[in-house]
Amino acid sequence: MTVSVEIINIGDELLIGQVVNTNASWMGSMLSNAGFDVRKIIAISDNEEEIEMALEESIGKIDVVLMSGGLGPTKDDITKKVLSKYFQSEMYFHKEAFVHIQELFKARGFQVSELNKKQAYLPTKAKAIPNRNGTAYGMWFEQKNTIVIAMPGVPFEMKTMMENEILPRLISKFQPQEYAELTLMTTGLGESFLAQKIEEIETKLPKDMKLAYLPRPGIVRLRLSIRGVEKQKLEKELQITANQIIEVLGKNVVYGYNEDALEQVLGNLLMRNSLTMATAESCTGGKIAHKITSVAGSSAYFQASIVSYSNEAKNHYLAVKSSDLEQYGAVSEQVVLQMAKGARKALKVDYAVASSGIAGPDGGTSEKPVGYTWLAVAGPYNSIAILHQFGEHRGRNIERASLAALNMLRIMILEDKSS
Amino acid sequence: MTVSVEIINIGDELLIGQVVNTNASWMGSMLSNAGFDVRKIIAISDNEEEIEMALEESIGKIDVVLMSGGLGPTKDDITKKVLSKYFQSEMYFHKEAFVHIQELFKARGFQVSELNKKQAYLPTKAKAIPNRNGTAYGMWFEQKNTIVIAMPGVPFEMKTMMENEILPRLISKFQPQEYAELTLMTTGLGESFLAQKIEEIETKLPKDMKLAYLPRPGIVRLRLSIRGVEKQKLEKELQITANQIIEVLGKNVVYGYNEDALEQVLGNLLMRNSLTMATAESCTGGKIAHKITSVAGSSAYFQASIVSYSNEAKNHYLAVKSSDLEQYGAVSEQVVLQMAKGARKALKVDYAVASSGIAGPDGGTSEKPVGYTWLAVAGPYNSIAILHQFGEHRGRNIERASLAALNMLRIMILEDKSS
Repeated sequence: MTVSVEIINIGDELLIGQVVNTNASWMGSMLSNAGFDVRKIIAISDNEEEIEMALEESIGKIDVVLMSGGLGPTKDDITKKVLSKYFQSEMYFHKEAFVHIQELFKARGFQVSELNKKQAYLPTKAKAIPNRNGTAYGMWFEQKNTIVIAMPGVPFEMKTMMENEILPRLISKFQPQEYAELTLMTTGLGESFLAQKIEEIETKLPKDMKLAYLPRPGIVRLRLSIRGVEKQKLEKELQITANQIIEVLGKNVVYGYNEDALEQVLGNLLMRNSLTMATAESCTGGKIAHKITSVAGSSAYFQASIVSYSNEAKNHYLAVKSSDLEQYGAVSEQVVLQMAKGARKALKVDYAVASSGIAGPDGGTSEKPVGYTWLAVAGPYNSIAILHQFGEHRGRNIERASLAALNMLRIMILEDKSS
Repeated sequence: MTVSVEIINIGDELLIGQVVNTNASWMGSMLSNAGFDVRKIIAISDNEEEIEMALEESIGKIDVVLMSGGLGPTKDDITKKVLSKYFQSEMYFHKEAFVHIQELFKARGFQVSELNKKQAYLPTKAKAIPNRNGTAYGMWFEQKNTIVIAMPGVPFEMKTMMENEILPRLISKFQPQEYAELTLMTTGLGESFLAQKIEEIETKLPKDMKLAYLPRPGIVRLRLSIRGVEKQKLEKELQITANQIIEVLGKNVVYGYNEDALEQVLGNLLMRNSLTMATAESCTGGKIAHKITSVAGSSAYFQASIVSYSNEAKNHYLAVKSSDLEQYGAVSEQVVLQMAKGARKALKVDYAVASSGIAGPDGGTSEKPVGYTWLAVAGPYNSIAILHQFGEHRGRNIERASLAALNMLRIMILEDKSS
């Protein structure tokens, strides 16, 4: 069966953008993975009328309404009051809740304040849900076939309550339809080019399977999802379609699964083959090295990086010929190849990647406009350089160049290993 | 006047938690700052019925409905289709949009595909809103006193459209209540320590003024906001309170205003004083250099960086004594100072910063646990090293170390200039 869920996050800070609603995405992900159908996520302010209106729109139409926020001890937190009024409920003193609050405060060396004692009063029409990590208990109401659950908004408290109390109860009550998803991580091709290449697969997707394109700079995620009865069968179906897509796009484009970072995939490849690497960076300014070293354990394969912004540094540390810097300019095939080869030799590594480009916003010419970027990889068998024309935005250019360089290295290692 | 706004973000990825809805918080923040009253933020799936229902609930009740997402060229993007059906609109070929798409593709060296050509068809009942950074035009409908605006979901495209097209038009149409805010950027002190220091100012804040603490790794933003009648007066009041806070916290802690990046503030300082710099990085792995070079025009003061992950590189490029590496270990005061001094000398710059630490998650010992980090700055007059104990999380340790190093350099330059 399909179980519809609506998430209502309460708090002014969400509406004025002071806080990013990470609770919503976390709850959405947990619920979807458990087979629930998340229909809608709403953020509203700590306002009685808004909360009532949101409830009114959902009661009787949605199976489960999950609320978070507004259960704190301060004046701006009104969710409990509004809910007990809405469900025409009295309040009672929940002894266990009070003991729990006392213990929490004792552990932190504080006295329980009057404000916090109030938190032990709960509505009679709700099941009380323990909050292991905080003072605000959760509440579970049922009316007209809709379950309304209120949880605290503090992520740490909400998550523990969700995992230990809410989700197990919901699953045992509904035993929802199974859901499975699989995401392919691609790099090097834009959304519309990917769509053209896999058009045939997309038009013949199995029933109930969906494909979504999720782009970010330099990367497009292809998300396959499916709902049905048997989890294992669904996962198998996803893998079959994923394999068809990988077959068409090739492994140079599809670099991994499910939020794999390119630097992690590359790191695993280097590690598995006991290879070492270095970078020589101009326009990427250290970002390739930063990505590589953001991976735990990268010191096993990453030796060093020379971020040579100045021509002197290119000449001095990477042995780029001054005459070539003069004749071709720093942003040229000749120079980027020498940078990669120079770094490989000086740092005694198996592979070195290099970048030289016009990151912008200034420094472009009609011949070499902003975004004009040479990338190179030098390896034990050969060296290559590729010219890219990225866009106008410095930050995006740096990001795209860094990803493209990492992927060039990944491709070269794969080819070296297979030949 | 109060102008009510509802934000509707469209995309399955938001509901299943694959993407955190940062568009919503950004839009909420922009709109609140401009004096609009954001009532509700809704995330729904790329589903005709859901989109229609959300519109139905808002039309006639809300002044402005801002939608984002579902305007891409691929099959899963249905917002344009649904809106033109809902507003009983025909489609027409928008020549200007097509020329724009062609130009975007030409600049990247690609041919326009049939899919992208389709994006130049727009509903007759909508004003077309240009998209500087992408192929999907925005749309502006009006019905029953409600304005419905559809924008692309790609953050980079949406933000540019919001800033340049949507917000100016909304402000000139509604002229909402005045709102002013001012954010102080601080680094080096945690939230609760800041709160202790400015407690007295906070308890005596002027009427209608609010103070919010917005932490992120290594940085806490202090946002002062106020609503009222006369913008200039509001801004003056904010500045008075801001000055009191700066007085108490000092300029070593308060490094800038309103989302100033520390690397930008530092860059301005270097530029203004015609100084040059370099970095020698171990645990930060290139991130300090990346931050520095993310600033446009940084090539004027940034020379180079040696990311010396291996001891060999520390010795070879930075002249760190092998005997000291052996005796004290790479993560030590002795070594980090030699790295900074070595980089300053080898790269012939005015200032050099250096890092050496245990970024984690592995590599810690009881004496030097994960997060144990030495940072150093070498300048024309003196050199200093400071020990930090960061946390357990690799990414956050790298970020915090990078910011702390940048701030150390900023403080040293300020002191050198004032003495």
